[in-house]
Amino acid sequence: MRIALDGMGGDFAPVETVKGAVEAVKAYGVEVTITGPEEIIRAELEKYTYDKSKIDILDAREVISLNESPVMAIRRKKDSSLRRAMDLVKEGKAQAVVSAGSTGALLAGGLLVIGRVKGVDRAALAALMPGKNGHFMIIDLGANAEVKPQNLVEFAKMGTVYFQAIQGVESPQVGLVNIGAEEEKGNELTKAAYQLLKEESGIRFIGNVEPREVSDGDVEILVCDGFTGNVILKMYEGVVKNLMAMIKEAMMSTTRGKLGGLLVKPSLKAFMKNHDYKEEGGACLLGVDGIVVKAHGTSDARAFMNAIRQGKRFHESGYLEKFKEKMEAGNFPVA
Amino acid sequence: MRIALDGMGGDFAPVETVKGAVEAVKAYGVEVTITGPEEIIRAELEKYTYDKSKIDILDAREVISLNESPVMAIRRKKDSSLRRAMDLVKEGKAQAVVSAGSTGALLAGGLLVIGRVKGVDRAALAALMPGKNGHFMIIDLGANAEVKPQNLVEFAKMGTVYFQAIQGVESPQVGLVNIGAEEEKGNELTKAAYQLLKEESGIRFIGNVEPREVSDGDVEILVCDGFTGNVILKMYEGVVKNLMAMIKEAMMSTTRGKLGGLLVKPSLKAFMKNHDYKEEGGACLLGVDGIVVKAHGTSDARAFMNAIRQGKRFHESGYLEKFKEKMEAGNFPVA
Repeated sequence: MRIALDGMGGDFAPVETVKGAVEAVKAYGVEVTITGPEEIIRAELEKYTYDKSKIDILDAREVISLNESPVMAIRRKKDSSLRRAMDLVKEGKAQAVVSAGSTGALLAGGLLVIGRVKGVDRAALAALMPGKNGHFMIIDLGANAEVKPQNLVEFAKMGTVYFQAIQGVESPQVGLVNIGAEEEKGNELTKAAYQLLKEESGIRFIGNVEPREVSDGDVEILVCDGFTGNVILKMYEGVVKNLMAMIKEAMMSTTRGKLGGLLVKPSLKAFMKNHDYKEEGGACLLGVDGIVVKAHGTSDARAFMNAIRQGKRFHESGYLEKFKEKMEAGNFPVA
Repeated sequence: MRIALDGMGGDFAPVETVKGAVEAVKAYGVEVTITGPEEIIRAELEKYTYDKSKIDILDAREVISLNESPVMAIRRKKDSSLRRAMDLVKEGKAQAVVSAGSTGALLAGGLLVIGRVKGVDRAALAALMPGKNGHFMIIDLGANAEVKPQNLVEFAKMGTVYFQAIQGVESPQVGLVNIGAEEEKGNELTKAAYQLLKEESGIRFIGNVEPREVSDGDVEILVCDGFTGNVILKMYEGVVKNLMAMIKEAMMSTTRGKLGGLLVKPSLKAFMKNHDYKEEGGACLLGVDGIVVKAHGTSDARAFMNAIRQGKRFHESGYLEKFKEKMEAGNFPVA
C-alpha cells in the first residue's frame, strides 16, 4: 500500500517527516509519496539510504499555514503539500493520507477533497488513548464544536466499527460523556442523545460515563460534541504534563527524594512511554471516504512512523469498506 | 461567627460531620449549630470534650437523599437537616451554611431559601483548585448545564470579587475556557461570551485559555458553562487518581523501583496533600445572598474542618457585602 505524506505539515517538517517516512518504509514495508517542494524533500531524502523504489516525491509548491482559513486554503491552494496528498487518496493513487499540519485544514481537506461516506452527516476526529485498564477512544475530539444529538449516534457507529475492524473487539462498549450517571442528567444535547443511543440497536450503549471515569479505560468508545472532546483531550494532556513536573519537583526537594528519584526513573520513563498517546499514531478523521491520519503538530520522526503505521493498519483492517457496507445496509449488528 | 452545619449531609455523616465541627470549634474559634435528629447528633457530640457554649443542635427530623428531586425536597422537607441549616442563614442566625449533601439540593436551597443577590441571573458553583504555579478557580463547576453568554460575565465578576476579597489579589486575571487561543475559536457560547467579556470594563479579561493550560494555575479565574466546568473538574480528579495509581504500579514492577518508591514516598505524600483540592474546603455557591459551602460527598472530619474554615474566611473577608455593593453600583473597577 501507499501512504500520501504531507511533507511540509508539522512543526519539524520537512526534516522529521522525511526521516519518519524513511524509517516507516524500512519498518512496515509501505510505499510513501511525500508531497512538498521537490528540491527540499529530495535534499532531506539524500541524507538516508533506503529502497528508492519505495519512496517518491510529488512536487507541491504551496504551504498551508496555521493562520489562514482552512476552507479557503484547501480550495485555493491546489498546489499545497496537504491538498496534493489529499488528491492522491481521492484519485486512488494512495490509500491513506498522513499530515501533521493544521487540524482545520486537514478536516476541510477530508470533507472537501475526499468527501464524506454516504449517509454520514458529520465527520469526526478520534484518537485511541491510553487508560488505566485499557485504551479508549473519544469521538469527537474537536472537528465539530456544535453537534446535533443524532451526530453522537453516528460517532458511536464509527467507533464501533473501528474497534471491531482495527482492535478486534467484537462488541465494544459505547458511553456518552456526561456530568452525571443518571439518564436525566446533563445538558439538552446529552439528554436527547441518551434517548437516541439507547434506541440504537447496532451499538452496545452502556449509558453515561462521567469524566472521572474516562481515563479508567473500561469503556472503549466515548462519544461527545467536539468542544467537550477537545476539553477532555487537552485536560488530559495538561494534567499529565503538570503532574509529572510537580512530582519531579516534589521528589527533588529532599535528598532522600532525589536518591529515590534516580531509582524510580527507569520505571517512570517506561511508564511515560507506555502512556504517551503520541505512540498511538495520532488522531484519525472518521466518516470521510478515505483514510486520513492527523499526526500531532510537534511530531518527530518516531511519531510520523507511528502515524504511517496507523494508516497502514486502517487500510489493512478493511475499516472503511466495513463501515461503508454497514452504513449502506443501515445495519449495525453487534455480535 | 456561627456556622450552620448540615449534620446529616455526606457519606460519613453524622460521625465525621460532628467530629469536624468539634475540631473546627477548637481550631478556628467559630460557633457551630449542627442540624439533624437531636438524639443522634447528641450521641456523637458526647464522644468529645469541647466548649459546650460553642456548639448547639437544631433538631431536624428529615433527611434529603441523593435520589430525590432537589427542588421538591427543599420545598417539601422543611424539617430536613439541609433546609434547617439554610433557614438559619436566611434568618441571620448563622453566617454560613456548610453541607456535604447533594449538590442539587444545596443549589436548590441556595436559590429557593436564601435567594440570589439582586442583579444576578444565575448562581454558580466555584472552587479553588491547586495548579502548578498557583491556585485557580473554575466558575461554573456544574450548577448550570446550559448558560447564556451574559452569565459568563456574571461568573467573571463573582470570581473577581472572590480573589480580591478572599485571596488578596487586587486585579485577578479572567480567562474563558475555550478550545483554541484565538478570538474566533469555539462554539456559539464561547464566541458570544468572548465579545461580552472583552467589553466588560470591571474585570481583567485576558482571552481564551485552553484546557491544556488550566492546571498551570497562571490564570486565576476560568469561566465556562457548568457542563464544561464539571467535565474539567472530573477529568482533573480522574487523571490525577489514575496517574498516581499507574505510577505506583510502574514503580512496584521492579525491585529497583520498589526501593526508590520507598524513598520517594514521603515527598509524594506531601505533594498529594498540597495538591488535594479537598484541602481547600470544598466548593462555594456564588451569586446567592448568603455564604454556602459545599463539602465533598466523601468528606471526613478534616474536610469538614476545612469547609468550616472556608465559610469563616468568606464571612470575615466581607466578600458578600463587597459583591453586593459592586452589583448595586453596576461597577467593577479593577485596581
